[in-house]
Amino acid sequence: MRITSTRLSDGRELRYYDEDSLPERTAVDERGLEPGSTEQGRMRFDALTGEWIAIAGHRQGRIFLPSAAECPLCPSSPGKLSEIPEESYRVAVFENRFPSFQSGGTEIPDTDRVPAWGEDLPAYGRCEVVAFSDDHTGSIASLDSAHMSLVMDAWIDRTRELGELPGVRFVFVFENRGAEIGVTLHHPHGQIYAYPYVPPWARGVLEQAARADLDGRPPLLADLVEAERASGERIVWQDEHWIAFVPYAARWPFEVQIHPVTDRSSLTDLTPAERESFCRFYPLLVRALDSLFDASLPYMSGWFQRPAHATEAEARDSRLFLRMVSNRRAADKLKVPAGSETLMGAFISDVPPEQAAERIRTTLESTS
Amino acid sequence: MRITSTRLSDGRELRYYDEDSLPERTAVDERGLEPGSTEQGRMRFDALTGEWIAIAGHRQGRIFLPSAAECPLCPSSPGKLSEIPEESYRVAVFENRFPSFQSGGTEIPDTDRVPAWGEDLPAYGRCEVVAFSDDHTGSIASLDSAHMSLVMDAWIDRTRELGELPGVRFVFVFENRGAEIGVTLHHPHGQIYAYPYVPPWARGVLEQAARADLDGRPPLLADLVEAERASGERIVWQDEHWIAFVPYAARWPFEVQIHPVTDRSSLTDLTPAERESFCRFYPLLVRALDSLFDASLPYMSGWFQRPAHATEAEARDSRLFLRMVSNRRAADKLKVPAGSETLMGAFISDVPPEQAAERIRTTLESTS
Repeated sequence: MRITSTRLSDGRELRYYDEDSLPERTAVDERGLEPGSTEQGRMRFDALTGEWIAIAGHRQGRIFLPSAAECPLCPSSPGKLSEIPEESYRVAVFENRFPSFQSGGTEIPDTDRVPAWGEDLPAYGRCEVVAFSDDHTGSIASLDSAHMSLVMDAWIDRTRELGELPGVRFVFVFENRGAEIGVTLHHPHGQIYAYPYVPPWARGVLEQAARADLDGRPPLLADLVEAERASGERIVWQDEHWIAFVPYAARWPFEVQIHPVTDRSSLTDLTPAERESFCRFYPLLVRALDSLFDASLPYMSGWFQRPAHATEAEARDSRLFLRMVSNRRAADKLKVPAGSETLMGAFISDVPPEQAAERIRTTLESTS
Repeated sequence: MRITSTRLSDGRELRYYDEDSLPERTAVDERGLEPGSTEQGRMRFDALTGEWIAIAGHRQGRIFLPSAAECPLCPSSPGKLSEIPEESYRVAVFENRFPSFQSGGTEIPDTDRVPAWGEDLPAYGRCEVVAFSDDHTGSIASLDSAHMSLVMDAWIDRTRELGELPGVRFVFVFENRGAEIGVTLHHPHGQIYAYPYVPPWARGVLEQAARADLDGRPPLLADLVEAERASGERIVWQDEHWIAFVPYAARWPFEVQIHPVTDRSSLTDLTPAERESFCRFYPLLVRALDSLFDASLPYMSGWFQRPAHATEAEARDSRLFLRMVSNRRAADKLKVPAGSETLMGAFISDVPPEQAAERIRTTLESTS
């Protein structure tokens, strides 16, 4: 695998991930873009919840569901210059032109204390786009395992590199797919947010794990995986490296977690055999999910992993896993988190997790 | 004000809220409904977050955007029998036919401990529908203050009565409005969920307040209101009883909080003057929000208040307020919480709160 790092005309970084056999990537961005907004986004502390909110007013102008002819993720061709100068590519990662978190942090931000009223912080960090393929119409489901491997190489490379930036506390590798989930670009792609804080959900998991440790219970995440394995009711697939299940307390109509069998705390810890197994299984799972309703399933998918610059407790309690959720509850119905979920965080699920697991397992068995 | 309590044909309770001058409510539900599902919903503990998730598989069959002719909230007429037997009404509250939380709890559930793996609890509690008016096409915006007063009487009556049920820990009075927010009935109505636990968002606020108390800082909620008043930048309206502002760390494109000026911890604590002032202002605010984009604004709106059977600390730290949020960020664009928000709880806001406040203030000034 070969990484080529280059710069777009406005200075943003672009990286190609290729098999060694492919020709060198030498194309130059000829758009002559002006450097992006120098307006620094800010973060404000929500005293009611103890959470930081990024205020990114400069993003309102971003592109919304462009046609294929205007797609910024398609490769460039004469007369149609995109974010990716090459005429073809395998996997490419570049800095988002409208980032919620901008480069520039020079130290680990102290986001754990309660700030004085009105004291905001710069929204340092980094937002990147991961173009999975140069085919505008594909998706993870259409990648073979060699191609999926390059995607995973990109995830691992970015986790390592962004996690070393001084202003970053968590590297979140994720994908939003489907207009029903608010996706503004159809071209198959994921994203990476390097947050300047440990985001609330991850912090919550680490708090639950620390509480288990304090109570003398077994390590939370390993214990959970073991309990799901022992129960077996919600498992949709497993091999010697991974186990995939609908979680016991799923809150979305379709929700799958994929955990390594052996303790790994970050994408960077995976062995070659684990990577290979995941890259064979994951596109298959997405194909199976797409056959549930005979239509591309809208989903959000993202990795929980060890925070960057982790404290000792964070390192002890972190255990890598992937979480996928879909808001489709029937062929013609979406689950919309409304008052109970959005205002109070109280989730009501309409689909018993065992039923969802049974449907996914059956569909997966007939998918290849 | 007069309350009439009666039963629907399947045994569910129905209450009318009327001015004293109106005739008695005597109509009988002639539909002969079978008693509802006896399948008891369950709650499961999400060990990753420490939150309870209600699993309500029996709700999948509920009605979805019915036409006016089939509307269950319109008053009954010969040949068209609805959930409300009278031929006209002012405000009516009845138990939801497809409740996420069902009656039957006989004690305060111990939802604070970490349960054993796989140990679920019955989803006791109560879900009610608040029909704001017998006019299918209206909304809060079209209520005069006398009618709004009856809505508030219903909110207060339900807060008091449901808060006394032994299995209830929090009475959440809320409204979802607009198909864009997942509303399945257009007829103007709100809801009441009597949860068997303090829901995560409310618990989070109480935790932040307890932390402030422990740190020797001023009471969190009163301090926040004072800070917003002193700053003034985000205030959209105030009188001697209430103050309405866009919060400093708003996470939605449009978000308004309405706080009483004097400490009140529950809807049941409001004075007649406070109630009257709120009932004049609130419909006006909704009218103003509806003029922001010349279209009915989708929103979620709900009251934070003292938990039922509150502990001493909960009672000390609770302070009543209303929170409204809208997911509309432009005339043709919705904010959809995707991977960052949904999977990680990390909110990125596109609209600076001061800009939102300025727009709402201006619109409010030209609304009557």
